[in-house]
Amino acid sequence: METAEEREPRQERSRATRARLLESAVERLARGGAAGATVGAVAEAAGVSRGAAQHHFPTREDLFLAVMRHILDSRGAELRRRIAGVPEGPGRTEAVVQLAVDAFTGDDFRAALQLWAAAASDPVLRERVVPTEEHVGRELHRAAVELLGADESRPGVREAVQATLDLARGLGLANLLTDDGARRRRIVRQWAGMLDAVLAG
Amino acid sequence: METAEEREPRQERSRATRARLLESAVERLARGGAAGATVGAVAEAAGVSRGAAQHHFPTREDLFLAVMRHILDSRGAELRRRIAGVPEGPGRTEAVVQLAVDAFTGDDFRAALQLWAAAASDPVLRERVVPTEEHVGRELHRAAVELLGADESRPGVREAVQATLDLARGLGLANLLTDDGARRRRIVRQWAGMLDAVLAG
Repeated sequence: METAEEREPRQERSRATRARLLESAVERLARGGAAGATVGAVAEAAGVSRGAAQHHFPTREDLFLAVMRHILDSRGAELRRRIAGVPEGPGRTEAVVQLAVDAFTGDDFRAALQLWAAAASDPVLRERVVPTEEHVGRELHRAAVELLGADESRPGVREAVQATLDLARGLGLANLLTDDGARRRRIVRQWAGMLDAVLAG
Repeated sequence: METAEEREPRQERSRATRARLLESAVERLARGGAAGATVGAVAEAAGVSRGAAQHHFPTREDLFLAVMRHILDSRGAELRRRIAGVPEGPGRTEAVVQLAVDAFTGDDFRAALQLWAAAASDPVLRERVVPTEEHVGRELHRAAVELLGADESRPGVREAVQATLDLARGLGLANLLTDDGARRRRIVRQWAGMLDAVLAG
């Protein structure tokens, strides 16, 4: 029988291998799209044997779904860190809108976009990705409502908060091929003003 | 020497073949993603010989760029038709926002999204796609300004119009995996109200 001490380091190694595979998959997806992010190619890039990789992720769908959850977890942790720094008072709405917009940029977003594109044309993957997406959508909305102190019982407030997240997603997509940070910054400021007017009633 | 009468039908046949290839490429992109939209596969689906297809589109980049322009042309024609039906008066802003949002749904948008995803991870394709994208972005913005009767010299108006197109893009992306027509409808109405307030100053 294996002792608890023997089991523990093996579990740690396994977790570390899994994390390496996921990081490598995010990078391959962001840079090279879904076609190049096979379990074998990801394993090679991570310096992990194909057998070990297949133990963690038997199929491409398993890998992609795990990547999606990994991205959401790391984005979630990043968001929670930044939320602590959101100021109270007049600049708050703009800071929250900026947070939402930032959540849809960077390598994580690029990788997620490639996963969405792959899921749109792969029914098996789509069926597994959609519930996770819907869950995250609800969580993001709830977080935005709380951060903005939005009263959703008032007309238009719920839709305005939803529009904030849809706008952020659209700005992220526009940013995919060309970097337009300055334009994005101006739109965030303008939208925050419009949103404030709705929140104030 | 070939007579003009002989040349004409051949040119017509060539145009018809090209159009069939492009329609077939849009469908393959929308349903199966960029990986399955090779020149050979598109030719087979269109019932065109591989040689004839390669005469029109020597490389995958040539095909994808032509598809992008084809989508933009057909969307542009559709938009011009619908613009004629946009009412004057109080419902106008909402009708224009709805037009913008509709421009980012359907098979054309699905195909375009797959092209963007492919371009994000293919420097050659990206370099060719970006100028077209930027041109279209400017044209769409100009059309929206005109339709809304927006005075961009007033503060925030330019950004609010840009945000409308970014929101439309974001709603289209959200719609990729799940159909959320009813939610989209409510957001369009709310957004139109907020946009009207900015346009009225």
